[in-house]
Amino acid sequence: MTEAMLHPDRLFPSNPVERDIARHLYSGVRDLPIVSPHGHTDPAWFSENRAFGNPTELLIIPDHYVFRMLYSQGISLEKLGLIDKAGSSQPADPEQVWQLFASHYHLFQGTPSRIWLDHVFFEIFGLTEPLSAATADRYYETIRDKLATPEFRPRALFERFNIEVLATTESPLDDLGHHAQIQSGDWTGNVITTFRPDPVTDPEFENFAANLDELAALTGEDTRHYSGYLDALRQRREFFRQHGATATDHGHPTAATADLTAKEAASLFAVVRAGNCSIDEAELFRAQMLTEMAAMSLEDHLVMQIHPGSYRNHNQTLYTRFGRDMGADIPTRTDYVNGLRPLLNRFGNEPDLAIILFTLDETTYSRELAPLAGHYPCLTLGPAWWFYDSPEGMRRYRHSTMETAGFHNTAGFNDDTRAFLSIPARHDMARRIDCGVLANLVAEHRLNEAEAETLASQLAYSLAKQAYRIP
Amino acid sequence: MTEAMLHPDRLFPSNPVERDIARHLYSGVRDLPIVSPHGHTDPAWFSENRAFGNPTELLIIPDHYVFRMLYSQGISLEKLGLIDKAGSSQPADPEQVWQLFASHYHLFQGTPSRIWLDHVFFEIFGLTEPLSAATADRYYETIRDKLATPEFRPRALFERFNIEVLATTESPLDDLGHHAQIQSGDWTGNVITTFRPDPVTDPEFENFAANLDELAALTGEDTRHYSGYLDALRQRREFFRQHGATATDHGHPTAATADLTAKEAASLFAVVRAGNCSIDEAELFRAQMLTEMAAMSLEDHLVMQIHPGSYRNHNQTLYTRFGRDMGADIPTRTDYVNGLRPLLNRFGNEPDLAIILFTLDETTYSRELAPLAGHYPCLTLGPAWWFYDSPEGMRRYRHSTMETAGFHNTAGFNDDTRAFLSIPARHDMARRIDCGVLANLVAEHRLNEAEAETLASQLAYSLAKQAYRIP
Amino acid sequence: MTEAMLHPDRLFPSNPVERDIARHLYSGVRDLPIVSPHGHTDPAWFSENRAFGNPTELLIIPDHYVFRMLYSQGISLEKLGLIDKAGSSQPADPEQVWQLFASHYHLFQGTPSRIWLDHVFFEIFGLTEPLSAATADRYYETIRDKLATPEFRPRALFERFNIEVLATTESPLDDLGHHAQIQSGDWTGNVITTFRPDPVTDPEFENFAANLDELAALTGEDTRHYSGYLDALRQRREFFRQHGATATDHGHPTAATADLTAKEAASLFAVVRAGNCSIDEAELFRAQMLTEMAAMSLEDHLVMQIHPGSYRNHNQTLYTRFGRDMGADIPTRTDYVNGLRPLLNRFGNEPDLAIILFTLDETTYSRELAPLAGHYPCLTLGPAWWFYDSPEGMRRYRHSTMETAGFHNTAGFNDDTRAFLSIPARHDMARRIDCGVLANLVAEHRLNEAEAETLASQLAYSLAKQAYRIP
Repeated sequence: MTEAMLHPDRLFPSNPVERDIARHLYSGVRDLPIVSPHGHTDPAWFSENRAFGNPTELLIIPDHYVFRMLYSQGISLEKLGLIDKAGSSQPADPEQVWQLFASHYHLFQGTPSRIWLDHVFFEIFGLTEPLSAATADRYYETIRDKLATPEFRPRALFERFNIEVLATTESPLDDLGHHAQIQSGDWTGNVITTFRPDPVTDPEFENFAANLDELAALTGEDTRHYSGYLDALRQRREFFRQHGATATDHGHPTAATADLTAKEAASLFAVVRAGNCSIDEAELFRAQMLTEMAAMSLEDHLVMQIHPGSYRNHNQTLYTRFGRDMGADIPTRTDYVNGLRPLLNRFGNEPDLAIILFTLDETTYSRELAPLAGHYPCLTLGPAWWFYDSPEGMRRYRHSTMETAGFHNTAGFNDDTRAFLSIPARHDMARRIDCGVLANLVAEHRLNEAEAETLASQLAYSLAKQAYRIP
Repeated sequence: MTEAMLHPDRLFPSNPVERDIARHLYSGVRDLPIVSPHGHTDPAWFSENRAFGNPTELLIIPDHYVFRMLYSQGISLEKLGLIDKAGSSQPADPEQVWQLFASHYHLFQGTPSRIWLDHVFFEIFGLTEPLSAATADRYYETIRDKLATPEFRPRALFERFNIEVLATTESPLDDLGHHAQIQSGDWTGNVITTFRPDPVTDPEFENFAANLDELAALTGEDTRHYSGYLDALRQRREFFRQHGATATDHGHPTAATADLTAKEAASLFAVVRAGNCSIDEAELFRAQMLTEMAAMSLEDHLVMQIHPGSYRNHNQTLYTRFGRDMGADIPTRTDYVNGLRPLLNRFGNEPDLAIILFTLDETTYSRELAPLAGHYPCLTLGPAWWFYDSPEGMRRYRHSTMETAGFHNTAGFNDDTRAFLSIPARHDMARRIDCGVLANLVAEHRLNEAEAETLASQLAYSLAKQAYRIP
Repeated sequence: MTEAMLHPDRLFPSNPVERDIARHLYSGVRDLPIVSPHGHTDPAWFSENRAFGNPTELLIIPDHYVFRMLYSQGISLEKLGLIDKAGSSQPADPEQVWQLFASHYHLFQGTPSRIWLDHVFFEIFGLTEPLSAATADRYYETIRDKLATPEFRPRALFERFNIEVLATTESPLDDLGHHAQIQSGDWTGNVITTFRPDPVTDPEFENFAANLDELAALTGEDTRHYSGYLDALRQRREFFRQHGATATDHGHPTAATADLTAKEAASLFAVVRAGNCSIDEAELFRAQMLTEMAAMSLEDHLVMQIHPGSYRNHNQTLYTRFGRDMGADIPTRTDYVNGLRPLLNRFGNEPDLAIILFTLDETTYSRELAPLAGHYPCLTLGPAWWFYDSPEGMRRYRHSTMETAGFHNTAGFNDDTRAFLSIPARHDMARRIDCGVLANLVAEHRLNEAEAETLASQLAYSLAKQAYRIP
C-alpha cells in the first residue's frame, strides 16, 4: 500500500545501473531547503496564519490541473464546487465533491497531479491507503481534522517544508499589505513578491483603462501620457523591490517584442489608452512594453521573466460563466527567434540584464531557446513549465536543452503553483527527475560522478537563487 | 531463425525490470478480442468471402507503406505491379514483383512494416525463415497455395483473428450493399460501416458537383440548396447508422472549423455548389461542414472523427499518372487551438458530443491535443496515426499525452488499415508497446501493478468500444 | 581520471543488455576509415602542411560552439581572443584565453563539445587529467609543444585519423589553388572540394553584385544576363568537379524552391542583379536558384545538399562589430512540404537526381523529412545537423526518421566541422550512438544481430560514400 503510494525509489530510472547513481545523487539534495522564486500562493495565508478550510476547498477548488481533468470527463464545474459569476447555482457540499473526486481518481493515472497528491496525502497527512471511493470519507475526515490543528497552519507548514524563500506574484495595483505585515512581524519566514504588470501593460486585460486610472491614483503620476505611465511603472517596481521583489513576470500571448521610437510608442500608447485599439495594436503595445520593462530592469536590476504562449480562456462559454483560470488555457506555437529580436537587438549583449524565458511550446527547446540562451548573455532558460512540469516533461526539457545551452544557462526549478501543500512534492519530483537525468549521463560516461553531485545541488538549489538574484 | 523473425519478447523494453512487468501485463491482454473501430478493409471480402488473389496482389499492391519505400529507392510503380490510369504499361508479373520486393526487404529495417510483415509471414503463413531474395520463391508459393484453401478465406481469417467488430469506411454515395448482405446473412462476423462524407463535403474532391447530384438522386433531396443538402446528409447518416455505423470520419487538410450564420453558410454553399469557389472558400466550406457534422452528431449520436493535416497527392506527376493513394501524402503542421475554436465555442461543453481527434503533427500532442482533450468534455484523443502507428511513434504518443490528458481521454487503438492480414500484427504491436509504457510507469513507481493490469486491458479493448460507442 | 575523461563504454546505452550488443557492434566499425563528405576545414592546411599555431588559436578561436557558450555567460569575445572588424581592441594573450576557457570548462557539462574536447585532449594529446583552472597551464604547454612536432602537422594527423576522403567547402569564386596543389603533389591524402554557390546565388549575401562581376571575370561569361549567369555557374561547377567535387551545398534561410518560367526568371534576375530587390524577391530568387541547381545536377551528376533554416547573424551588434559566424546563428521553423514542392514537381521523380536534405527544425524529422525521403526517389536525409550533432540529437534523429524512411534513405554521418582535430571524436560519437540505437532494436527483437552488424557498417561508412557518389 504505502509502497504503491510513495516508493522511496519513485521517479528514478528503472534501469538498476542508473537507479543506483540516481539514488546516491538524490541523497545529497533531498534535504536542501526549498527555493521557490516563482509561484502563486496567497500571501494572506502567511500574514494571517489562519487554518486552511476543508480538503475540497484546499485541494480541489483552487487546483485547475485537478478540476480540468474531472471536467474533461463530463463532470460540471458546479458539481466540483466552483461558483459561477452570477452565483446562480447552489454551492456544492464539500464532502460530496470530495467523494466525486475520489471516485474518479483513476483519471489521474499517468499524470503528475497523481504523484503530487499522493505525496501530499502520505507525507503531509500520513494517509497510507490509496485514495478511492472506499477511502474517500476517511481521507476527508483525516485531512479536515489535521487542518484544524496548529501544526497545519500556513506558517507551521512553511517551516516544516523547509522553505528558504517563497515568491508570490502580485499586480502593480496591489498594496502589498500582506507582505509588509509579514516583513515587519516576528515571523522569520521569507515571503517575497513579484511584479506582474499584465493588468496595466496588456490593453486586452480586463478593465485596462480603469487599472491605469488606479495606477495614477497610487503613484500620483499622470498615466494619460506615456512618460507619466512609464514613471508610474518605475515607481511601482521600486515599491515592489522594497517588498522583497527580485523579479518581474510577464504573461503574454506571444514572445513578440518591439523597439519603437519614443514618438511611435507615445502615440501607440494614446490609442491604447483611449480603449479602442485593434488586435494588432494591442499586440504591438505588449511587445513594446517588454522592451520598456527590459530597459527598467537594467536600471533597477529586477530579473525579467517572460511566460508566453498561452491562449487564455479558450473556452468562451466557461469564461463568460466562471471567468479566468478555469483550466481552459491552451498552449500555442511560439516564435522566439523573430519575436525577441527587437528587444535583443537593443539589450541582448548587456551582461547585467537577466531575462528568464519560459515556453509552452516544447519544439522551441532545442530549436530556439537553447540556441538563444547558449549565446546571449542576458538570457537564461526557465524550467519546464505548466503542463510540462512533469516527469516526462522535465526529461524532455533536459534532453532538448542541455546539449546546446548546458546546465548553467538554466534557472533551476520553479513550482509555479497556487497549491501550497504540493510545493514539497513538486520540488521533490524535480530533484528526482534531475538526478535521474544526471545518473544517465554518469552511466553513459558523459559526466563523472563528482560533477554530477555538484550539478544535482546546483539544479536543486543554487541555480534558482543565482538566476533570480536572491541574496 | 524463428527467434529473429518473431521473438516472444519482441517490442518489450529491453531493461529486464521493465520487461518482466511488460510480459506479465501483456499476458493479460494478448488474447482479448480485436476491436477495430476505424479501418479501410473492403466489405466485399466479407460479403462474398472469395479467396484472396496472389501474394503480390494481397500484400504489396494495396499497401502504400510498402510500395512507397520501394519507390523511394528508384523502383518504378510499374515494376511493382501498379497500373497507371492510361493503362499504358504491361501488367507486371506478380512473381517478379514479389522477387523484387524480397530482394529489397532490407529497406524495411527499422520500420513497423517489417514487423507487421514478419508477423503475417510467421503467424499466418507459418514461414520460419526470413524473407530474402533466396527465400522469395518459397514464400510466394507457400502464401499462394494457402490463400487457395478455405482456412484463408476472409471470413475464416476474421474468425481466426478473433475480431469482435470491424469498421470499414464508405462514401455517403455507397449503397452499403455488402454490409446489408453481411448483416442479413448467417455469418455472425460483425462488420460495420463508417460515414465518410469528404466526397460531398469537400469542394476540392474529385467530381464534387456530380457527387452532389448523385446525393440528390439517392435521397430525393434538392442538393442545389443548402437546407436540402444538409437534409440529404442527415438521411445518409441515418442510412449508415442502420448499417451499423457508430461513427463518422472527416479527412481534412487542416483542423479549421467555422461557425457561420445560416445565411452566410447558405450563400457559401451556393458558390461552392456552382463549382467556382476559391481555395479559401473551399477551406471555409470544409470548416463549416465540420461544425454542421458536429451538430448532426448531437442529434444522431454518431461519434465524429477528425483526421486533419495530410497534404494529399503531393507528387503531382504520380497523381496525374496513377491517381490517389500512391504513397505521396505528406503530413503538414496543424493548428488545433485556433482551428477548432469555432466548433468548440458552439459545442465544446456538450458532454453528449464525442469527437475523436487525430494528428500527423506530433508537436501538437503535448502542446495542443492533450491540453484540449484534458479539458473539453467532447474531445478524445485518437491513437498515434499513420506514420506514427509504430513502436517509437506510439511511445512518443503516450509520453507526450498521458501527463496532461491521462489515459482515459484516449480512444484505445485503431489499426486504420486496408491490409487485412496485418490487423492482428498491428493490434499485437500496440498491445506490446502500451504494456511496455505501463511497465515503465510501474517500474518507476508512478503506477501500481494492479492499476497497470486494468489499464492494459482498457487500452487494448474497452476504451476503443467506449470511445466509438460500440455496444 | 582517464576513465572519467574517456571511458571505453562511453555513449553506449547504460542498460547492460543493450550495452553488450552496442559494444559488439562498435567493435566492428571502430576502425573503419573516416569518410567526411561535408565539412569546413581549410585546404591550405593540407596543401602547405605547416604546423598549427597555439592551443587557443587551434581549439577556441575557430570553434563557435566553444566561444558562444563562454559568451553566453558574459565573457566578451575580445577576452576570448577574437578581433573585431575595426581592430580596435588589443589581441588577447592566448595563454590567458586558455586559462579563462579552462576555468569555465564546467559550462560544457552535458554538451557534445565537452566529449569532443576530452577526446582530443586524451586521444590526440595524451592528456589524462581533466581540464580545469588547475591543469590549464600544463594543458597549454603540452598541446603547444606537440603541435610543433612533425607528428602533429596536418598531413600527419590526416593519416593518423585514417581519413579516406575529406571534403572542404568553397565559394564559386575560389581558385581552388590549394586543391590543385594537393592533387598534383606526392601526398596521397584525398581532399576534395564542394561547390557552395551562396555568394553568387543569394542576393542578400555580402557583396553580391561584386561577386557576380568576379564570376564574370573568372568565366568570361556575361553575368549581366540570366543565361550568361547560368552558364558561368555551369562552368564553375565543372571546374569544381575537376577538383574532386562530388557535391554542391546550399545554405538558405528557408526550404523554399520555385519553378519560374525562363522569362520570369530572367526578369527577376535583372531586378536582383541591379541590387535593389525586395526581401520577397531575394527569397524568390534563392528559391528559383535551387531549382536551377537541381537542373544542373541532373546534367553533371553533382549531389545537391540543401541546408536551410538558420537565421544567420541574429545578434545585430555582434554582426556589425565582428562579422559572420560569431555563434549567433539561430534555427527557425522550416517548411519542407510546401517549400520543396516546386522543385519536386519538376524533378522529384528523377532517380538520377540526388538531393540530401538537412534541417535545424527537428519537428520536421517525422512530420516532413522522413515521409518525403521515404517516397521521392531523389531525396535522402542528411544526418542530424549542427546543434543536433550530439548524443541526444542523433538518437532523436534515428528514432524520428527510421520508422518512415528506414536507414537506407539516410546519408550516413557528416562531421560538418572546421575543427579538424575533432573529426575523429565526432565520427566516433556518431558510431557509438548509432551502435546504441541498433543495439536497442536488437534487444527489442526488432532487428536481428547480423542485420545490425551490416547496418552499423553502412551507417559508419558506406552510406556516406554512396549518398555523396564518392568513388
